[in-house]
This record gives sequence, C-alpha cells and structure tokens, in this order.
Amino acid sequence: MLLQLGRSLAAPHREVILSSCMELGYAVRFLDEAQRLLQLDGPGAPGHRAQLTDLTGVVRVVDEGEPHELALRDGDHAEDSMIPVGNARFGAGNLSLIAGPCAVEDEERLEEIARGVLRRGAWLLRAGAFKPRTSPYSFQGIGVEGLEILDRVKAATGIGVVTEVLDPRDVERVNETADMIQVGARNMANFPLLVELGQLSTPVLLKRGFGATVEELLGAAEYILAEGNRSVILCERGVRGFDSVTRHMLDVGAIAYLKKTTHLPVIVDPSHAAGRSDLVRPLARAGIAAGADGLLVEVHPHPEEVHSDGAQAVSLPSFERIVEDIATLAALDGRRLVRSGSPPASSLHPGSGSSLDHQN
Amino acid sequence: MLLQLGRSLAAPHREVILSSCMELGYAVRFLDEAQRLLQLDGPGAPGHRAQLTDLTGVVRVVDEGEPHELALRDGDHAEDSMIPVGNARFGAGNLSLIAGPCAVEDEERLEEIARGVLRRGAWLLRAGAFKPRTSPYSFQGIGVEGLEILDRVKAATGIGVVTEVLDPRDVERVNETADMIQVGARNMANFPLLVELGQLSTPVLLKRGFGATVEELLGAAEYILAEGNRSVILCERGVRGFDSVTRHMLDVGAIAYLKKTTHLPVIVDPSHAAGRSDLVRPLARAGIAAGADGLLVEVHPHPEEVHSDGAQAVSLPSFERIVEDIATLAALDGRRLVRSGSPPASSLHPGSGSSLDHQN
Amino acid sequence: MLLQLGRSLAAPHREVILSSCMELGYAVRFLDEAQRLLQLDGPGAPGHRAQLTDLTGVVRVVDEGEPHELALRDGDHAEDSMIPVGNARFGAGNLSLIAGPCAVEDEERLEEIARGVLRRGAWLLRAGAFKPRTSPYSFQGIGVEGLEILDRVKAATGIGVVTEVLDPRDVERVNETADMIQVGARNMANFPLLVELGQLSTPVLLKRGFGATVEELLGAAEYILAEGNRSVILCERGVRGFDSVTRHMLDVGAIAYLKKTTHLPVIVDPSHAAGRSDLVRPLARAGIAAGADGLLVEVHPHPEEVHSDGAQAVSLPSFERIVEDIATLAALDGRRLVRSGSPPASSLHPGSGSSLDHQN
Amino acid sequence: MLLQLGRSLAAPHREVILSSCMELGYAVRFLDEAQRLLQLDGPGAPGHRAQLTDLTGVVRVVDEGEPHELALRDGDHAEDSMIPVGNARFGAGNLSLIAGPCAVEDEERLEEIARGVLRRGAWLLRAGAFKPRTSPYSFQGIGVEGLEILDRVKAATGIGVVTEVLDPRDVERVNETADMIQVGARNMANFPLLVELGQLSTPVLLKRGFGATVEELLGAAEYILAEGNRSVILCERGVRGFDSVTRHMLDVGAIAYLKKTTHLPVIVDPSHAAGRSDLVRPLARAGIAAGADGLLVEVHPHPEEVHSDGAQAVSLPSFERIVEDIATLAALDGRRLVRSGSPPASSLHPGSGSSLDHQN
Repeated sequence: MLLQLGRSLAAPHREVILSSCMELGYAVRFLDEAQRLLQLDGPGAPGHRAQLTDLTGVVRVVDEGEPHELALRDGDHAEDSMIPVGNARFGAGNLSLIAGPCAVEDEERLEEIARGVLRRGAWLLRAGAFKPRTSPYSFQGIGVEGLEILDRVKAATGIGVVTEVLDPRDVERVNETADMIQVGARNMANFPLLVELGQLSTPVLLKRGFGATVEELLGAAEYILAEGNRSVILCERGVRGFDSVTRHMLDVGAIAYLKKTTHLPVIVDPSHAAGRSDLVRPLARAGIAAGADGLLVEVHPHPEEVHSDGAQAVSLPSFERIVEDIATLAALDGRRLVRSGSPPASSLHPGSGSSLDHQN
Repeated sequence: MLLQLGRSLAAPHREVILSSCMELGYAVRFLDEAQRLLQLDGPGAPGHRAQLTDLTGVVRVVDEGEPHELALRDGDHAEDSMIPVGNARFGAGNLSLIAGPCAVEDEERLEEIARGVLRRGAWLLRAGAFKPRTSPYSFQGIGVEGLEILDRVKAATGIGVVTEVLDPRDVERVNETADMIQVGARNMANFPLLVELGQLSTPVLLKRGFGATVEELLGAAEYILAEGNRSVILCERGVRGFDSVTRHMLDVGAIAYLKKTTHLPVIVDPSHAAGRSDLVRPLARAGIAAGADGLLVEVHPHPEEVHSDGAQAVSLPSFERIVEDIATLAALDGRRLVRSGSPPASSLHPGSGSSLDHQN
Repeated sequence: MLLQLGRSLAAPHREVILSSCMELGYAVRFLDEAQRLLQLDGPGAPGHRAQLTDLTGVVRVVDEGEPHELALRDGDHAEDSMIPVGNARFGAGNLSLIAGPCAVEDEERLEEIARGVLRRGAWLLRAGAFKPRTSPYSFQGIGVEGLEILDRVKAATGIGVVTEVLDPRDVERVNETADMIQVGARNMANFPLLVELGQLSTPVLLKRGFGATVEELLGAAEYILAEGNRSVILCERGVRGFDSVTRHMLDVGAIAYLKKTTHLPVIVDPSHAAGRSDLVRPLARAGIAAGADGLLVEVHPHPEEVHSDGAQAVSLPSFERIVEDIATLAALDGRRLVRSGSPPASSLHPGSGSSLDHQN
Repeated sequence: MLLQLGRSLAAPHREVILSSCMELGYAVRFLDEAQRLLQLDGPGAPGHRAQLTDLTGVVRVVDEGEPHELALRDGDHAEDSMIPVGNARFGAGNLSLIAGPCAVEDEERLEEIARGVLRRGAWLLRAGAFKPRTSPYSFQGIGVEGLEILDRVKAATGIGVVTEVLDPRDVERVNETADMIQVGARNMANFPLLVELGQLSTPVLLKRGFGATVEELLGAAEYILAEGNRSVILCERGVRGFDSVTRHMLDVGAIAYLKKTTHLPVIVDPSHAAGRSDLVRPLARAGIAAGADGLLVEVHPHPEEVHSDGAQAVSLPSFERIVEDIATLAALDGRRLVRSGSPPASSLHPGSGSSLDHQN
C-alpha cells in the first residue's frame, strides 16, 4: 500500500501514522525526503485501508495493492461465490429469477402469482409485507399478516420467499418466513439493520441505494459479511439521474464493474429502474448482458390493478418472454438459468449439482 | 384537486376511484366526455393526495389545489413555525447555530469545544456518539459512553446537545441526553426510526438524504409530524452531483423552495456539503442568504487532529468569523441570530421573547 | 392535444392562444368553466407542440396525442428507418459496427487499424482529424492533414469513414472525406453546425451530450431532419453521473426508450461511457441487448500507446470477441450484424438487399 | 510536479516521458525503485500538465505543485483580475449587474426595459438576438435585426450590451454591437467559437455548461485566454441535478471554489438555475454571498408576456429589491456594487478608480 501524507504534518501525527502501520503488521518506509509518500509492505487484512484512511494526516491511498475486504476478489476469493437460495442458485455461472408483486395483499391472488412465476421459471417469489413509502399516508404493507400469507403460499406452492425488512426489531420474525431477506434501496446504509442481518445465516439481498456509490454498496455488504453472514447478493436497481424517461438510471457499468471486483453475485432489478412496464424487458436484457447473475422483476397477473408501483409490473406472458431472453443470454456465455417449471426438471434441477462443477 | 385518469380504464377501477373520492368527502365530476379528467371539490386533508395517487388508474394530479400535509404551509399554517431547542430558536425570524466536532471522543476535548462554541454564539453542541460510516472497519463512535460524556459536558457548560440516533432501539436512551435528536442523511428514509421519533416531543433535526428529492424530504418529515411530534427542523446538507470540487452539491434552490413551501424551519450544513474546510464559510453564507434559519457546522479546536471527516472541520477562530457573517446576514433581513456568548446577553436572551413578537 | 393554461390569464393572451391554435388548423374548446383546459382537435404537424408551448399562458401539454416531430414514430413512420452508410446498414433489424482509434495520427498505423477492424467485421472506420479536448494545450488532432490521411486509407482499404466536425466552416471539407459525419457530445446542441449538416445528404452520427436529456437529443436530431437531411443516427455514449467507477453512466434506459419513440437508428458507444478498456465489452453487450442498432467502439492495435483517451481503447483481439458477442445477440432477436470480413461475403453482403426485405 | 506512471511500462514509453519532461525544462528523478513515481522540478508553464497527462503511461498527476494555466491564481496572478465592461466593473471587489429580457423582440419594449434596469442599477443590458432552443420549431431569435435594435437601444439609452453568439461566422457582426459577448451554456465547449472570441479584445461572458465540470469550465476559459483575450468572466448558471423543484441546481460550491482558484471574475445567473421567478431572489443572494462578482438576471416589465423562458423573468420592482440585496451583501464584505442610476453618480462612477485601490 502507498499512502500520501499531508504537506505540513506535525511530528506527533507522523508518529501515530507510523506506529499504527507497524501495529497492523506493515514494514514502512518513506519514498521521498519530504516524507509525503509512505510505502507499506505487509500481508494486509480487511479494514486496514479504512483504518489508515481514518488517521489524521493521511491524504489518500495512492496505490492500494491487493485489496482485503471480504466482499472483494483477492487471492482467497478469486472465483465467484455461488449462493444457493432454496432451489435457486446465484453466481459462478448460475442465474436465477426472483419475481412477484410489489406488496403482499390478497392471499388467493398471491398464490396465483406464485404459481404463475414458478411455472415460468422463477424459484423465488418476492413480495413485501412491509413497504417503505415516501408518504406516511400511502399504503405501507400489511405487516406480520403479510408474512403469514407468505408462509401459507410457500407451503402451498413450494416457492421460495424473498421479502423485505425495514426494522431491526422485525428481523427475527421476517427470518422465520424468508428464504432470502431483502434490504431495500432506502436501507442500504441502515447499519444497525445490516449488523443484525450479519448475525443470521439466511442470504441477504442487498439493493444499492439510489444515491449510493458502488464503493458505498460494497461497504454495506462488508457490514454483513464482517458479522459472519457470507451469503450476500448485491442488486443494481437504478440510481438518481437527471433524465426522466426512466424513473431511475440503470447503471450497467456498476454491474460490469462489480462483476470484476467482487466475488459476490450481482443481480439486476429492471422494474424499479424503468418505473414503466414497457422498458422492463430491454433493461432486464441489458443487465444480464452486462454480467448480472439473475433478475428481480415485478410481475402481476393484472398489472393495471396493483396499488403501489403498479405502472412498472409486467404481466405473466411478458415475464415469460423475459425468462426466455435470460435463458438464451445465459447460454450465450456458457452460463445457465437455474429455472423452475415445466422443461425436463430432473436434468435441470440444480440440486444435482453436476452441471455446476464445470461452470465459469 | 384535478386528477388525470388512465386512457383505457376498466369500469370497476373507475368505480373504485369515484367511490374512494366520495368517501374522502369530495364532490366529483368529469370535465370531459372521455372521462379522463376528474375534478374533486371538497375540504381535503393530509394524505388524500397520496391515497388517491395510490389508486389504480390515477395517472397524476394535474392540479393539487391547496395542499394539506402537515409539513406544508396552508391556511392553518401560513406562518413560519418557531421551534425552540434549549435556548436556541429556529424559524419565524430566529436563527440559531449548532456546532461541534463530528464525533464524541475525548471528554476534556469536547468540553473545550463546547465552551469555545458557546462563547462564540452557538447555544447547541452537535457531536455523534453513534457514527454511520461507509466501512464497518472505520471508527463507529463510542456509543453509550459518548452519550454519558455529552451528559456531563452539558451539565458542566449549560450547552444544549444535538446528537444522532441510528437505531430505533436506541431512541429512548438518546432521548435522555439530547435536546434535539439528529436523523442523518443516510437514515432520512428509515421510516421505523422516524415513527419512533414521532412519538416523542423532543425536536428532531432531519437531514436530507444525499440522493433524496425535496418531496421525499417532506414525506420523511410528515412521518414524524403525523405521529404527533410537531418539532421538526429540516436540514439541507448537499446532494450527489457529478462534480468533485465539493464533496456534495449544496442545493440552495431546495432551501429557497422549502422556505416557500413548508412552515418548518430549514437549516444548512455547509460542512458536509463542502467536505473541505476552506469552502465552509462561503457555503454557510449562501445557505443563510437563500433563507435558512440556522447553521450546523463542524468545528474543532485542532481540525487537523480529527479522526473522521476531519478535513471539513473549521477552527474556532474561523467559526467566529462565520458567526459574524450570519449575524449580519440575518440582520439584513430583519431576522436575528439568537446567539449565546459575550454580547449583552440580557437583551439578546431569547427567553425574553419580546423580540420574537414582531418578527417575520 | 390538451393544453393546461395559466390560472389568471389576461383576456388578450387567451385570445392569442386561441387564434394561434386555429391558425395551426385546430378546432378548440375549453373543457372546464375556469377555461384552464383547452382541447385541440386537428391533424397536427411537426413543431406545433413547441410553438404552442412558446405561447404566453400555456402552462403545459397535459396530453400530446399523436406526436408529429420528424424524429418520432407516428402513423407515417411507424417502422424503423434503415440508414445505409457505405456497406454498413443501421436500423430495421440491421446492426453495423464502427471502430477505430480516437484520433488520426500516423498513416501507416491507421491503415493497419482499418484493415484490422475491416477483417473483423467493421465496415466503418472512425478516427478524428479534429479533436475536441478539455484543455487547449492537449493534442487537438491534425486537422485537414488528417482528412487527407483518411482519404488515402479509405482508397487503399475500401473501408467507410466516420469523422467528426467541430466547426460549421469545416463541414464542406469534412463532407468530401466522410461517409458519415460525427457530431460529438459537446456539440449536440451546436445548432448552427446541425443546420449546416441538415443541408447535406450525408448521414450524420449525432452523439448525445453528456449533460443532455433524451428530449434534447431528439430536439437536436430534429434540427437536422427539418433541414431536409433524413439520415440521422443517434448515439448513446454515457451521461454525467455521481459515481466514478465508469467515466460516464451508460444510459441503457435511454436506448430502450429511444427505440420505442423514434424510428431513427440508435447506436451505443461503450468506450466513452466506460473510460476504461476492461468494461467496454460488457457495456457493448448491454447496449445491444437494450436494443441498439450498432456499435461505435474505440480500437487500437497497441492500446497502451494511444495519445488521447488511450485507456479506453480495446485491442484487435478484444474487438473480435465483442463482434462475436454482437453477432450472437443480434441473431437472438432475428436481427443481423451486417459485417465485413472473411465469412462468405457474398451471402452476407448487404448490397444484395434480399435479406433486408423480411427483416423486423 | 509528481507523476504516477503505469505499472508495466515499456522502456520506450518511459523514455518518451522522460525526454518530454526534460524538453519542457524539468529536472526529473524517480522516487522509487519500481520507477512509478516521477518527481519533476522546474519552472513549469501553462499546458505542461495537459501535455504530460496526454503521454502514454502517465496515470495521473499525484501532486501538481503550483499551477500555471492562465485562468488560475498563481504567483503572477495572485490577485483578482478586474474586468471593465463599459461602465460596469467585475472583480477585485467590484460587482456589477447585467439584466434584460431573454430575447430581443420589440424595439420599443426593449428600450423600456433598458431604461428600467439602468434606472435601477444595471449598467449592462442582456438580450439575445440569436437564441439556442431545444426544438428547431421554437422561436430562435430575430438575428441580425435584433443586433440592429440593440445598437439603437444602446445609442438611445447609453446602456452597455451583452448578447450571445452561437456561430463563429457571426462573431464579427456580434462584436460590432456587443460590449461583452456571451457564450451560452450549450456552447461552453464549442472550441472553434472560443478560439474566435480569443482573438478579440471584447470581454467574453462564458457560461458553464449544465453538464460541465468546473475543470471543464476552466479549460474553456483557457481556450480564450490562450489566444490572447484576457477579458473572460465566468458564469455559474446551474447544472443538471436529479430534483425538479428548480430547473437546474445552482452550484454555489463551484462559485466558492472558483473564487479561490481563478483570478477571473465569476458571476451568477439565478434565473436559468431557478427556472421560476419566485426563487430568483434567494438564488441571487446565495450566489453573491458565496462570492460572486455580479449578477445576470432576466427582467421583463411584463414577465407574463414573454415568449421564451418567460416563467423565470422577474418584474422591474422585483429586480429593484434584488439590486438592494446585492448592494447590501457587497458592502458587508467591503465590496461595492458599481451601479448605474439615480444615486450620486459622480461619486460612484467606477471611472474614478479611487475606490478600487483599496478593494479586496
């Protein structure tokens, strides 16, 4: 690691920097007489970069060398992590689909949707019992009752459940229902919530905040990983931009960058990025083509009837077309879509594992 | 209110819209044969807009008429609200200052800062016991121990305390220490936290998320207000932009717009916007000139020694110059800076209240 | 068209609005007593929307009805336009490739690149004789000498030439050399330049400004079209965003939206969006998957030696992989890559036209 | 200057870098064995930074040392430049006002406006004969006829004229009329236009592009300065942001940064940033409080009647209030507003120069 120090650094601060580096196991030496360029040699560990940047007088890390954060690819984690969620598989050449309505509302309707998406390839149903909304007067989800509906739909259909948690005090109850727990964009930097989730073994779907940098997303993942939960799936869902033809701007560059940088799976949510159903399919394709390991898509059998975020839900036939696109795009790269549903299920069933061995 | 409905709206959805409007107390009539423009006449109430926009088939509110949200100026709240926090006063022609280091660290040092800013005009000390940081390996604050230090510094100096809460489970403890509780930018849309704070009577300092629109900020305030806590102070602290000469882009247009739209006080945090100490003073001035009712500024007696966010803290002499600027800018508009410290305290003491009567 | 008028509109302004509408051939009637909603019925024409929005007292177009601008899909232009450029074909199911170095420098080197990309599928070479650079002290291109080099390379290799013009006074000379003239992102709103190009019949490659909305891009295209030149190809090349992992943020949502809205071909430039060679391939794929009709990519046989923008150029072998990706992605949709080079050229040669007839 | 070189740099490239540095007059030495950190010692000159960054293998400038670009403050230009435009003065403690309608339309009306703003303090009238508009069908200005109207209004009233040029071929004619030539935001990076203006001695008002970084604005200014025209005034007018309460986001941080970095005057255009007349006054105040040396504001005696951009024009009485604000804010800093109009003109007349000596 190469640090640049401040121009007029007081001796005690320089001392603190040097001793901190040495405590962390580095050999140190200045490259220049002015003592502004400090070379560190040593094994390194997660957090060193952050801790050193915190020190008074450290201007920046000029050259980081090999990174060590748990989320990042390095010598120990050069390969993709593969994270199973129920029958779904994410990463290491496996793509999976998460689909469903925005919110849990009517049980019968939700079961219809679950069966519909399961038949078309999605091993996982996403539906919110707790809904974060801009206005306190908007529909906020039906809470624990929604989780109970999810329990019954899961039991009836065999679909896996992904649902959002907003409050650290709800984590325990949500964890009873969810196969994967979603952290929404607004909560990406809700660190007490992330720490709580880090103490579970349930996979976490971590959505990028719409005003968050990629570095901040990786920092949020690190909060979960550092607590011991290594099953984190990242999700790009569009960020704030200046144009209004889509609700948010889908950052496919972030997907491509993340695939190079982190071993964690990265999926794409084209629905919230588009904010309009007619652009969901091209954005889904773009995300997968950029390297995403799966899809989170809002589906509703009667998209025109949805209460919240309705304008962006796609119908079941539209979803089917998207699934076919994704399957083909995956195959193009020698990746495979781990899909539920009608086609010869035995040969495709991810439980067999055989097809995973030679992936990627 | 004038609603635009969808082009090919099914009869049952049209019925739901009409009956919902009538249940909310509106007389309804279509303006056109195509039944796409629905005029609503009635008294209205907070939440109607959000509830109607939630309905299937409502494309948008073409003309809102008089708004009713609790945060907004309307017939009942045409004038500025004035919110007292200890000896400080915000709004209705009163400006106050909040100053302090980023984090609570050493007690002796914090007391030195408290006395320093109190002597120079700030009735309120801001220092974080809980610090939200991008990396889990960065300094996270010293937690409850920090609150205890704040308690003692407050007792010793008489300064009011503003401190951040990150976790709804900490609200009760933080509330014992704080004269005003800060919701940081990352938690602006942490709705369970906002709801918890809405049940207190302690003032809440609500910072705008760096990726949040002004409408989202007002929605977040409404969460607190709707629970019964009417003491909310908004804070503009810079948003994400594409240029890097400042860390965030200070949105003075948002300050000006908020002052027209909401009766709540609005303050400015130039320190986080600038991200560098040499631009704090001009940004503080710009915010006040745009209409802000006060200032949150990071101050440290030895800015070069601060652990987190150090580069943006200003020294006590710099703070003193900023205070003089603010006092003069306030006077320019017939507003007044409610300042602590040396000048004839009796005449300025906000407790007297006399000078408030004819403000604004 | 449905117009919303201002609240307190003076009678003479209302008269001007009504008479202007009638002059443009519309029957007009107010939908409400307050005379704020004005319904226009009539055939419409390009420019009406802009002219009416210009009128004092027109607040906005609530419902536009069928658009008429020349760039937009409507009754007359429901299908994709196909624009041939030399042997290349863009639109209506045809994809083509444009590749080359950023700037024209050494003739021998340029010929090597031209042969390299031609062999790998690109019918068009892009290289700048005039280079817009942030600093006046940076390399600005070699000007007319560069055009002469392009002339000779074209003669020697048979490749088509795409090159940028910055100055309306250079249009005539550039037009002698170019098969397609590029308008760079910085000049998207250089209207005198666009008007000049509108008077040619040479195709124009119009790049979106990095701070421009999609509506502004379509407005820029309209400047060229309205002058009579109907051969305009749009190019998304990334816009300003707040994250720095890519140089600009590739707006695939804009590509998807444009493909729905305009009949003009839309291509993608992944190189300028990425700003780094290792992300060019995923961004190229994402753009094509979102619907783009072709690719503009920076290629250099020795990427590490390039003077300007070198870090983003890909090598010839990398380009070859990208071409294979694009060909496969195109085939996936029943589209085809109109490629130069080794494969049975006769059957693929777009000049035959036969395969175009049943496209899309 | 300290350069960071690429990791695996071929010997010939390293040679080119070393010899280029030496040709530019620098002594060079590597700081590290890996030869990635190259220290340059020497006097430096404008352009060296850009030329060195252009070289293959130069990753970045780690430490620039003293800058040398003509726009920047350095040893030779430590103090503000003061630029006179007619009777107006910008910089070095002098503020001036530019006011007027968006476009030249009716002569009588324009003369009325000119007299109105002159009486209220503006020595300069801004009105566009050539108008850049998003749509080719919108009103484009009346061209040369507009310049003739400006000539007559100037002759009749004595007001100075600021008007925009879009096309390098119009520079000569515009220069006959204008006391200062405006480069609009859309043309900030129209380099042939900037070069043309650099050959004049007439002051240039250079507006920041709404998608341009501060560094790009300084680069654009350098194009004019490097050609020999040293009278450049920068203008911040709002940039693209994600919120829509104002049309653009006024970047007061850029104003503050520019005042530290460049010796050129910097003014603020609150009208285009706000896009709505009711926020012009607070944004004008914010810009001046952040350090701006003057104001460009859209004024119209009947704001409701304006064709283009009408919603943002302020009335003459509103302008008068803004002028009073600016005068007071300037005085607050020991700066002065060089205003036209009624107050004892002799003592205020900037021609006397005496009051300038002790400014700043």
